[in-house]
Amino acid sequence: MNERSVGIVKTQFYTLKVPFFLNSGNFLEEVTVAYETYGKLNSEKNNAILICHALTGDAHAAGYHEGDEKPGWWDSTIGPGKAFDTDRYFVICSNVLGGCQGTTGPSSINPSTGMSYGLSFPQITIEDMVNLQYEFLKHLGISRLYAVAGGSMGGMQALQWAVSFPEMMQKVIVLASTAISSPQQIAFNEVARQAIMRDPKWNKGDYYDGEFPCEGLALARMIGHITYLSDTAMQNKFGRDVKDESMFQVESYLHYQGDNFTKRFDPNSYLYLTKAVDLFDLSNGKSLEEGLKNVKADFLIISVSSDWLYPSYQSKEIVEALTLHDLKVEYREIVSHSGHDAFLLEKGQINYHVSSFLEHLSVRNVMLSEVPTIDEGCSLEEAAQLMISKNTTHLPILSPSGRISGIVTSWDITRAVANKIVSLEDVVSRDIVTTRQEESLFVAAQLMEKYAISALPVVDENGCLVGILSSDNISALMGKKAD
Amino acid sequence: MNERSVGIVKTQFYTLKVPFFLNSGNFLEEVTVAYETYGKLNSEKNNAILICHALTGDAHAAGYHEGDEKPGWWDSTIGPGKAFDTDRYFVICSNVLGGCQGTTGPSSINPSTGMSYGLSFPQITIEDMVNLQYEFLKHLGISRLYAVAGGSMGGMQALQWAVSFPEMMQKVIVLASTAISSPQQIAFNEVARQAIMRDPKWNKGDYYDGEFPCEGLALARMIGHITYLSDTAMQNKFGRDVKDESMFQVESYLHYQGDNFTKRFDPNSYLYLTKAVDLFDLSNGKSLEEGLKNVKADFLIISVSSDWLYPSYQSKEIVEALTLHDLKVEYREIVSHSGHDAFLLEKGQINYHVSSFLEHLSVRNVMLSEVPTIDEGCSLEEAAQLMISKNTTHLPILSPSGRISGIVTSWDITRAVANKIVSLEDVVSRDIVTTRQEESLFVAAQLMEKYAISALPVVDENGCLVGILSSDNISALMGKKAD
Repeated sequence: MNERSVGIVKTQFYTLKVPFFLNSGNFLEEVTVAYETYGKLNSEKNNAILICHALTGDAHAAGYHEGDEKPGWWDSTIGPGKAFDTDRYFVICSNVLGGCQGTTGPSSINPSTGMSYGLSFPQITIEDMVNLQYEFLKHLGISRLYAVAGGSMGGMQALQWAVSFPEMMQKVIVLASTAISSPQQIAFNEVARQAIMRDPKWNKGDYYDGEFPCEGLALARMIGHITYLSDTAMQNKFGRDVKDESMFQVESYLHYQGDNFTKRFDPNSYLYLTKAVDLFDLSNGKSLEEGLKNVKADFLIISVSSDWLYPSYQSKEIVEALTLHDLKVEYREIVSHSGHDAFLLEKGQINYHVSSFLEHLSVRNVMLSEVPTIDEGCSLEEAAQLMISKNTTHLPILSPSGRISGIVTSWDITRAVANKIVSLEDVVSRDIVTTRQEESLFVAAQLMEKYAISALPVVDENGCLVGILSSDNISALMGKKAD
Repeated sequence: MNERSVGIVKTQFYTLKVPFFLNSGNFLEEVTVAYETYGKLNSEKNNAILICHALTGDAHAAGYHEGDEKPGWWDSTIGPGKAFDTDRYFVICSNVLGGCQGTTGPSSINPSTGMSYGLSFPQITIEDMVNLQYEFLKHLGISRLYAVAGGSMGGMQALQWAVSFPEMMQKVIVLASTAISSPQQIAFNEVARQAIMRDPKWNKGDYYDGEFPCEGLALARMIGHITYLSDTAMQNKFGRDVKDESMFQVESYLHYQGDNFTKRFDPNSYLYLTKAVDLFDLSNGKSLEEGLKNVKADFLIISVSSDWLYPSYQSKEIVEALTLHDLKVEYREIVSHSGHDAFLLEKGQINYHVSSFLEHLSVRNVMLSEVPTIDEGCSLEEAAQLMISKNTTHLPILSPSGRISGIVTSWDITRAVANKIVSLEDVVSRDIVTTRQEESLFVAAQLMEKYAISALPVVDENGCLVGILSSDNISALMGKKAD
């Protein structure tokens, strides 16, 4: 566990005391919601962020369950100093309605019968999931969200939030998702469902007292996994390597993923949730412009360059429709070979884009605070030697009072040699640009671009050096060097 | 049946009298090959073209079986005057080794046991398929092929032919294929195989005396069908239309395709053939350049713009490797939304590219022979009226002897109006470029491009007009205006 983790967390449960009505008119007598929260709700109650999970995700988005070695599914973006900064925000994640990881779904006990619902569970929609989240937030005393965010099916929920409760949030973040499920997406979901339903152990959904249809569920997951990766990702990851005489590595990988999945997921939940995804259509059969007409929030829409399951054009359609309503919309395409999975994997780019959108990523989060410096009056040779030993190309020069009075770079040294200059003083840059720890990283990056400099000294209110921000730090954060 | 059909055909059979040895060292005691031929082998025996079929294809490539309403699978390209012109070529197609439509495969009776092979059938490769075709061609008395052609798995066989028997053919045509099966292709094949093998009725391949694993096979086919279509094709074909309350059109289509497939295909064959595809790697674990070093033929490599199962980059890799060996290679990308299936559907573009490559498509095949003309001495008004009434923009002008003496276009009329010219004579083009019926279409098209003209009069040996070739005719043939 690193210091930027939210630490040990526990899933909590809340049971709605009244019947929960679905969009279809059906209702569930009793609904339990599994959820986790990270960070603290402030006294103004205006710092809550709701995270919505994807098809097979759960409420455990960040931190560690006691004894676990693996953190929650989006731990890379949720925690102190991360994009969803738990020092600032109260972050909430709940398992969706219809799921199988604590929230009521087809595997839950129907209070009327004392048995698992199975196929008697009513078909739910993305809207129903969002309505349940709304009810559950009331229980937490939250009537307004700072933001709603999610990827894939989580992105659908985030969009649905903006449509269903337009006044209730300031910002919406949608990753690798769509506003309208396409026939290709439906087709992949249908073959996955058929894999489950054609397993005789599925038994029309009534398997809770017997053997689970694990073979069918595993096959469904294998199909899913192909669509989560890109052609290139598979080429890089597996190529034509063989596991043994009868199997390629890629086959072995899919089998492992499929089998592993059966340990944690309910086959009937897979059927209900994929169907909810298929039914998702914010155009309501008209246009997306029409479907999004009442939306009020600011949007960040992110797609992945190599995602062929939720291709970038679907994100751009959302952007276009929102733009027609004069909403503030940012669109970013993550550059990655990882395919759809990138919304879970490309933490550098996601942290950067989300932080910038939430407007709180500051120089402090990224700067290096241990900076080698030299004092006024040093020699050219001393400066060069320090650069070599500390492996740095920039040396701030400090006055006796600790204030920064200049900067010398390896380029300056080169210039001195070229021009037979022997005094450091004659090559040092005195006209230096600095920034402050509190400055937005975005503004600092713009400053570096404007002055064409690759490192920016960070100073305190007295002009004393407290760190240095280099373009290397920023690009590492961006993680743009995708495999 | 249209006049360009090869008519009623019959599948024939040939049984190899000696054991057939496989690459693995295994052998089959007896092998039967199902095949069809169209056209006539000439006395020089140098006009034979071998057509190789894809995964689930068969020997019935063209014409009609007695009583059938549907022609063979590539009837659009094989027949009199078509790309594989049966007036010129002797076209042969055989069912592959391991198949289930007449050629020996896992469903065949093992002569040693008197029972179907099932899983005792040895694993075969693309190379084995080609070796069997070679033996069978010997039986037909063919020692040299004019060309080998195929799409998808058929393209793999065509490539393998060029590698295994480099001296035996002049030309090779590969459509929508690859020289090396990629991990994504392997992955899709593996989930299809799992769909079959996880059907309890599969019974480790021993189902020939009982019920067939139809549910598994149908699911395998459903998965396959998603990969044969493009996202756009599905959007255009199905959108979010619903079949009934519980099903989208796209789901209904997949179910229909899956169920239908079980009527004509053997599940074990599906396993063996997909594995042969997976094992296909002409680089032999080194480089494609190395793998193709002995190849001698001229190549036409065709890919499909929207094919994501066998993407264009894989065709380009073949082109690059062949080019390194200074071979004559043409590469064409079919512009189509139809995805992988385009190699069966885009008959216009395929006929054009294949005909041009086989160098026999002439102006005669494409020109319009009923051309409105005007006589010398006509007025400007008469010319304009005829253009309007005949809906044409080009009017050849004929001399009293019927020779073409000039041409007038709607552009000339416009020019006359603009410049207040009243006599047709003053705007007519006298310096006209013509072509002949026998001319290669390719050369004629180049001529039109060179002179920037959109219609070319076609004349006979006496200079008399016999037709007109317009860029519209060519582009209609090309079928570039994909949906």
